[in-house]
Amino acid sequence: MEYAIGADIGGTKIQVAAVDREGRVADRHLMPTEAQLGPAQVMEKLLSGIERTLSRMPDGAQIAGIGVGSAGQIDFASGTVAYAGDQLPGWTDTPIKSRVEDKFGLPGYVDNDVNVVAVAEQLYGAGRGLSDFVCVALGTGIGGAIVEAGRIVRGAQGCAGELGHVSVDFNGPRCGNCGNNGCVELYASGSGIARLGRELIAESAERPAWRPDSREIAQAWLQGDPQAARVMGVAIRALAAAIAGYIHMCNPQAVIVGGGVSETGPAFLEALDREVRIRTSPSVGSVYRLLPAYVGNDAGVIGAAAQVWLYGGRSI
Amino acid sequence: MEYAIGADIGGTKIQVAAVDREGRVADRHLMPTEAQLGPAQVMEKLLSGIERTLSRMPDGAQIAGIGVGSAGQIDFASGTVAYAGDQLPGWTDTPIKSRVEDKFGLPGYVDNDVNVVAVAEQLYGAGRGLSDFVCVALGTGIGGAIVEAGRIVRGAQGCAGELGHVSVDFNGPRCGNCGNNGCVELYASGSGIARLGRELIAESAERPAWRPDSREIAQAWLQGDPQAARVMGVAIRALAAAIAGYIHMCNPQAVIVGGGVSETGPAFLEALDREVRIRTSPSVGSVYRLLPAYVGNDAGVIGAAAQVWLYGGRSI
Repeated sequence: MEYAIGADIGGTKIQVAAVDREGRVADRHLMPTEAQLGPAQVMEKLLSGIERTLSRMPDGAQIAGIGVGSAGQIDFASGTVAYAGDQLPGWTDTPIKSRVEDKFGLPGYVDNDVNVVAVAEQLYGAGRGLSDFVCVALGTGIGGAIVEAGRIVRGAQGCAGELGHVSVDFNGPRCGNCGNNGCVELYASGSGIARLGRELIAESAERPAWRPDSREIAQAWLQGDPQAARVMGVAIRALAAAIAGYIHMCNPQAVIVGGGVSETGPAFLEALDREVRIRTSPSVGSVYRLLPAYVGNDAGVIGAAAQVWLYGGRSI
Repeated sequence: MEYAIGADIGGTKIQVAAVDREGRVADRHLMPTEAQLGPAQVMEKLLSGIERTLSRMPDGAQIAGIGVGSAGQIDFASGTVAYAGDQLPGWTDTPIKSRVEDKFGLPGYVDNDVNVVAVAEQLYGAGRGLSDFVCVALGTGIGGAIVEAGRIVRGAQGCAGELGHVSVDFNGPRCGNCGNNGCVELYASGSGIARLGRELIAESAERPAWRPDSREIAQAWLQGDPQAARVMGVAIRALAAAIAGYIHMCNPQAVIVGGGVSETGPAFLEALDREVRIRTSPSVGSVYRLLPAYVGNDAGVIGAAAQVWLYGGRSI
């Protein structure tokens, strides 16, 4: 039986797993990142996690390679961290690929954490059989990845796909991350919905003490609460305007939506789809489909490992 | 001497030229499109224009192929018109590539008119030596093309790159072309600037009878007129917010700006660049440059012809 090792490095946890060619997880191992201990410690955890997973493989198992997905901006060709922010202090310039290859003598592939989720969706999920799609990850912030003609759009430094930092209001509030005004992340991410909630609910004076997070707002919306409906209405219209822009720019067959906010359920995706459709040209809107992300919580390690099957034996 | 034939089909005129490998135009021929006569007449004009150009080539000239750029959405692989609007009535489904190849027995390449301008910039202009750039054409509307990893981003149907239909205000006016709200085209195209002028100048009550077009507004702005400055300030901020979004999505080395509005001059591009820089993450903003389009008025035929050198002998 042939496996690839997948490792997913986030700001709070590192997950390592052995994954087979069909995307099934055979063995998984979770560690806190403890990013504040610095990049050498994070690398040590990554390498020991991979070592542990390798040591637990059954007799006769073959390991085809090691794939890593990491938070931050990754230079895919060299497998080095181009830029990591406060989430992983000091992680910038870490040569992940060469450290992994040197230690284990196996081919290594390193990409950012949202790009590897796109790989998982492409091989095993909602993107299966599609050549052109966009992944939107609605978490605390909004991340993204663009697949065009079957390959990930990386741009000059591997930083393409920052879908959260597209403006939907050039007179809107300034974004603390990028400096643009009215980034869609300020409206439709978890923190954006909570921000809108604070503003709109405070205005209403009905429940001035209510300080809900995005999950509470989404639940209240599903139960028919009018204040929550006002907040979610703004979030959905802002996100739909941004997605219509992605569609006009990239002409995808699908927009795949995942992350905590999308787990509000079908009502959220249905409302979003309605708003997207009235905002797109018929010529591109007619082929587009809005799809929920399929691969789920293990998408990070599955996609990281899947790089081995997708790129293995190919020159990039 | 080796030449390629380039043909540029627009709503008002068809231009055909013989162009050499260095992008120099040897012979050009301009005809009115008379699109209202229907697609068969337009095709007849195209073919007779190419024939005329071929007949005027000097003795010993070799013709490597024929490239066409056409308004509308083009399926590049088949060289067929996927969709053409009111600009070219009935042009949808016209098999341009096979008609040209059948008649002249030369390899043909067909793409949309903005994508071929990107090819011209890539081979001879501001995009020379760049692998990742975005072209923004500020005309009556706003068109665009995205080059990533050296190739044009086409999307599922060849319709990618509709940069004018990215929203910069999800509560803004509805776009008559695509249905989205606050498309950047409504603010920073020629017609968008004229629209803003009508609104903002009418509000001001100082010169209620003034109904300037975008060129007059730009000229008045350069001469220090405060009302024109207000209009151009809105247009530039809206365009900068959109360009910052393109940069976050595509991580390009350059954004190349052309078209009538950009011909306002260096002051326009300088003001735009300042606004873009305060709206982009340092990691992607530090590599980006704003560049004026270089190839100029003949870019359509030069880029159409250049497809022969770029794609000739290669399977796509």
